[in-house]
Amino acid sequence: MSEVAIGVDVGGTKVLAVLLDRRGVVLDSERVLTPHVAERPAGDAAAEVVHDLVKSVASRNNLSSADVVVGVGLPGMMSRDGVLVFAPNLPSASGANLAASLRALDPNVRVLCENDADCAAVAEYQLGAGRGCDDMVMVTLGTGIGGGIISHGELLRGRHGFAGEIGHMVVDARGPRCPCGSRGCWERFASGAGVARLAREAATAGRLPVLVSQCGGSELVRSEDITLAAAAGLGEALDVIDEVGWWLALGLANLAAILDCSHFVIGGGLSEASTLLLPAAQRHIASLVEGGPLRPPITVVASHFNERSGAIGAALLAFERLAP
Amino acid sequence: MSEVAIGVDVGGTKVLAVLLDRRGVVLDSERVLTPHVAERPAGDAAAEVVHDLVKSVASRNNLSSADVVVGVGLPGMMSRDGVLVFAPNLPSASGANLAASLRALDPNVRVLCENDADCAAVAEYQLGAGRGCDDMVMVTLGTGIGGGIISHGELLRGRHGFAGEIGHMVVDARGPRCPCGSRGCWERFASGAGVARLAREAATAGRLPVLVSQCGGSELVRSEDITLAAAAGLGEALDVIDEVGWWLALGLANLAAILDCSHFVIGGGLSEASTLLLPAAQRHIASLVEGGPLRPPITVVASHFNERSGAIGAALLAFERLAP
Repeated sequence: MSEVAIGVDVGGTKVLAVLLDRRGVVLDSERVLTPHVAERPAGDAAAEVVHDLVKSVASRNNLSSADVVVGVGLPGMMSRDGVLVFAPNLPSASGANLAASLRALDPNVRVLCENDADCAAVAEYQLGAGRGCDDMVMVTLGTGIGGGIISHGELLRGRHGFAGEIGHMVVDARGPRCPCGSRGCWERFASGAGVARLAREAATAGRLPVLVSQCGGSELVRSEDITLAAAAGLGEALDVIDEVGWWLALGLANLAAILDCSHFVIGGGLSEASTLLLPAAQRHIASLVEGGPLRPPITVVASHFNERSGAIGAALLAFERLAP
Repeated sequence: MSEVAIGVDVGGTKVLAVLLDRRGVVLDSERVLTPHVAERPAGDAAAEVVHDLVKSVASRNNLSSADVVVGVGLPGMMSRDGVLVFAPNLPSASGANLAASLRALDPNVRVLCENDADCAAVAEYQLGAGRGCDDMVMVTLGTGIGGGIISHGELLRGRHGFAGEIGHMVVDARGPRCPCGSRGCWERFASGAGVARLAREAATAGRLPVLVSQCGGSELVRSEDITLAAAAGLGEALDVIDEVGWWLALGLANLAAILDCSHFVIGGGLSEASTLLLPAAQRHIASLVEGGPLRPPITVVASHFNERSGAIGAALLAFERLAP
């Protein structure tokens, strides 16, 4: 029986691996940049990076393939048999069977693949900011929005394993185009890309005079400028963060209506803005959810493990499914 | 052990009771109009109607309170302890504890209350158009849109019992006002009220010249006129049905992204339009759902029990929970 697991989180920009023991303690970690190689078969480059990272972490800790189980979190629609069917924000890996590619590189590896936000949900539910909340949703705000649903204490996987693709819930049917092919997906508004878009809109509409003058033009205002200026207390930037918080709350309210989840854990790269964004979302949600004042309060909290949620959850799932 | 159950479905316009045996056969049924009495305590009028209906069905079949279990389906947010917390389309019953009121009228009655669409989902999943589909959603199209979610073969109830309020998922954030207080809820587009609104829009925009002239004015075109004219093959009416089908598919696509359900059963009062509406929704959903052509097909079918789904499901739940 493996006493340690390696969890790997493959993101749009970086790949993070953690070595976890059964108590949930991170013993080691390592990160590299995500390869984006359009001319190679889908996922091969990703498989090699994961393979190298696992080998590096294992050998540094004097472990062989037989000693560890490996869990890998990937962004997009993961089928139950391990194929990354569709990944709007990591197109070069769409269609890849990463588990098969990893086994081709090392026939002894015991590995599973799961959606990255599903992994994060498991980490936060079992050990983090969602402990004790049997009906919760993990929301990862990065380039897009990922989701992992815990329903009645279990990860909700759906018919084929695709459940939790909450970022592609349409909230503005006539809204902006999304790389997935639809219009007005939630992640066009409440993700990193959403902050950038809403900031650009505000700048063009003359609602960011100070920032536009500081940045030297309305087209030069980036989402980091907004979050930094808001953190410094600039009113016009706070207004944009409040608008993003409203859109975040709108999607959470939809999920609460559908799933009756009462707790949301927010993680992902946008979480540096979370000290301002989450209170805004918490403030707006009561007026947006059906039956708002009549239902018990819904809580919106920051993730406990931050950028490590996905990798830690992938390792926990590897324990659960490969070495119970 | 009760060998028969009475299921009652309390709708916005009528109350239907069925007497069901354990094989799922309807032995008897009866219906009355829903009382709308604003000046009486919430739910008392509804409780009396349900009580009278149960008594009438029971006595006609020589049954006493001890012989039957009773399940009641109600439209709106039902808490696990039987309170109808919020009912946008049946405001006079909001806040009512119908089970308690029924027990006050007959201390011997064994009764449970559940959301009406949840009841319908159970009926269709166990005996109807959803048999064998462990990840399905029942969608009832009436004045509003109700929902019942079957996930992994179980009714998904959520933290407090409110799950499945899919009609109040916002799909057009800047859209028309909804009685629930929000804007652009799905049921503003794909319900009976939605057909009426989209028809009015089309009439005003000059896209229904034949119907407007037949009805004697654009403000006189009702949703029945649209469905009848579409059934008769009138192109301009078929266009409106196609538009409603597009909105229906949009919400289904959202649910499929979130839940990865692969089967939708459509019921409710709007189902007379279903021979035209459902094919339209089926046609649009592949282009609206994330990863459309890459994921296994999603099926959209008409309910098997039609207007009886809710009452039959309420009876099945009464068997399950009160006389297992």
